[in-house]
Amino acid sequence: MKAVGQVRKRGPLSRTAIAELLDTSRASVTSIVGNLMEMNVLTEVGHGKSDGGRRPRLLDINAGLGFIAGVDIGATSVDLALADFRGEILERRSDVADVRTAPDQLLNTINDMVSEMLNQHGADDSHLLGIGMGVPGPVHFPTGVLIRPPLMPAWEGFPIKDFLRDRFPNARPVVDNDVNIMALGEASVGGGVGLDNFFYIKIGTGIGCGIIVDGEIYRGSDGCAGDVGHICVDYNGPICHCGNAGCLEFMAAGPAMAEKARLAAKNGEGKLLAKALKDKDGQLTSVDVGEAAAAGDQAANKIIEESGRMIGGVLAGLVNFYNPKAIFIGGGVSNIGHQFLSTIRQATLRRATALSTRSLQIDYSKLGSDAGVHGAIWLAIENTFALA
Amino acid sequence: MKAVGQVRKRGPLSRTAIAELLDTSRASVTSIVGNLMEMNVLTEVGHGKSDGGRRPRLLDINAGLGFIAGVDIGATSVDLALADFRGEILERRSDVADVRTAPDQLLNTINDMVSEMLNQHGADDSHLLGIGMGVPGPVHFPTGVLIRPPLMPAWEGFPIKDFLRDRFPNARPVVDNDVNIMALGEASVGGGVGLDNFFYIKIGTGIGCGIIVDGEIYRGSDGCAGDVGHICVDYNGPICHCGNAGCLEFMAAGPAMAEKARLAAKNGEGKLLAKALKDKDGQLTSVDVGEAAAAGDQAANKIIEESGRMIGGVLAGLVNFYNPKAIFIGGGVSNIGHQFLSTIRQATLRRATALSTRSLQIDYSKLGSDAGVHGAIWLAIENTFALA
Repeated sequence: MKAVGQVRKRGPLSRTAIAELLDTSRASVTSIVGNLMEMNVLTEVGHGKSDGGRRPRLLDINAGLGFIAGVDIGATSVDLALADFRGEILERRSDVADVRTAPDQLLNTINDMVSEMLNQHGADDSHLLGIGMGVPGPVHFPTGVLIRPPLMPAWEGFPIKDFLRDRFPNARPVVDNDVNIMALGEASVGGGVGLDNFFYIKIGTGIGCGIIVDGEIYRGSDGCAGDVGHICVDYNGPICHCGNAGCLEFMAAGPAMAEKARLAAKNGEGKLLAKALKDKDGQLTSVDVGEAAAAGDQAANKIIEESGRMIGGVLAGLVNFYNPKAIFIGGGVSNIGHQFLSTIRQATLRRATALSTRSLQIDYSKLGSDAGVHGAIWLAIENTFALA
Repeated sequence: MKAVGQVRKRGPLSRTAIAELLDTSRASVTSIVGNLMEMNVLTEVGHGKSDGGRRPRLLDINAGLGFIAGVDIGATSVDLALADFRGEILERRSDVADVRTAPDQLLNTINDMVSEMLNQHGADDSHLLGIGMGVPGPVHFPTGVLIRPPLMPAWEGFPIKDFLRDRFPNARPVVDNDVNIMALGEASVGGGVGLDNFFYIKIGTGIGCGIIVDGEIYRGSDGCAGDVGHICVDYNGPICHCGNAGCLEFMAAGPAMAEKARLAAKNGEGKLLAKALKDKDGQLTSVDVGEAAAAGDQAANKIIEESGRMIGGVLAGLVNFYNPKAIFIGGGVSNIGHQFLSTIRQATLRRATALSTRSLQIDYSKLGSDAGVHGAIWLAIENTFALA
């Protein structure tokens, strides 16, 4: 399936190009491609440029091979998409969801939505050939089972893949941590296209990181790489729910910003924050902080700067260590405006070494809230071909 | 050259095994192997186990193909070795060296030593086929040129590879950062054999890190990955020579330990340290601190614990991020005894997440001061085959 992998990564290729990329003979590739075309995996899609002789026929993945579903489960919502085998999204859905509900219940709701999307395209459950799912918790990747997930304890050990297979008998399921699939989405169709190594940082209720090495998700030796939310920013800081002092996410993520805003409003430090608190019945979020800051509320600005500085300080250390080409920032808190990004950039560049930031790009995710579904689709496509 | 790569990594292999590993036909491998044997790159070294039929002939790299030199330049010393193409060290040298001297002068001394070793084995300069060199500073790997090296400013931009080629016309030279080659040494013949991903941390005058991903050196997008010495451990700490406050190496490496020991001795806090200071004419090193601590000096113990805790704190963050299988610690300060290692371990395990430390091994380097030369040899062998 190496020929398919090359086509997937590089787009339409000639047989000669595939032979060169795989360092094998043209004759051998012709035979492999013949088999893959018989299986309807590859298809000819026109002609490439001539090298002097006849223009070569180009091969691409057969978009009509079947359907792929991508599912991105968040703490309070679920995003879904139905796609073809080239990763083109055919239909997109979003819904509220509560991950604290029993897994079979939420998964049934999701499966029903996937079935509906299939039906819309004249297909039924049997036509789904791959399903990729991102979940907000630590995943044992080979089995697709959640391990001690703090946000969704009822899912611990639940056989998600078996459950999906029962409904979609021809679909190969794959389950991964939500941040990993977002990073893969960014790598496949977002700002990370063509970059060998970068991070995707999700800042929301928690802070997590997806790491791309050589264009692939890096999972580490136990599958939990990227757990940056519990890196210490203050050894004398408040005690996080994990039991340690001064964890980054406990001090800088969405809930910390909201709580600081609530206190500032109560203490009369932020007039716009106080107004927002009143308008929203005592419930503030990081987005309210962003709006107040944009409107000139000093207390709100200070909250954003504090979070940005802490996050940038940790990123600076990771940049020194890992020397990535780019950092993309996503998650709910990335919607609070440009000042937050700007503070993160400044803090990262101030503390990281000059060498490691020479060509470093720090930006919000290009895909926004679509990163997860795109990544889930691509993970499912990769998984289908890797094991086919 | 993929067949050679497999043999180098896995030891003697049969043609069938090579065909399976490369996912290609037995016939194609037989033809490739025939060519490599004619070129004297591969040689038959006996028979493997039978699978039922005839016992297969095993192929290994031809140790007699030529000579490889490995050079590890430290701030105050140089380690060299002459090896064969299987990485077996034939001869080993060490000498004092000062990297502040002009590059051509030091390199000439090194080249003379390499020539002497070749002569000892009945060979001359023309028989050297590869030379790998580690240098204590940031290297632009493709060109092998040092970029703003703080310890050896006179080497900035010096064409090391050209200089080596002038002396050894048949040797393919390769130059890398010293910590990278130590990590590669550990991966090739040390504690990292068979581990997909680990760090090698060198603690000496500075603190640096070599990162292994999938068994290879990870260099990052600008070639400066692993620069952990300037990760911040205290935003209110003293100003490092890099201009930032509270850098790890400025607060925890050898010179910081020696300076704390000197102060403790002067202030009458450590009797054994005071005695050492007197015995050594006012010059203490981290090794003196280790000896005083082992003999029960409380001030010395405190110095070791402070450094260990700071280093472990930073490692904990990197473990959360990267989830390595192991961390190996080398460099001069790793010679100060077990208490230092023990403190680093405790601090790392206390702060890192439970998931990421499930199977984490933290140990001193298995190769000690030989890690660099072994790595330089393996880098040279890889480099010779990759481009041959």
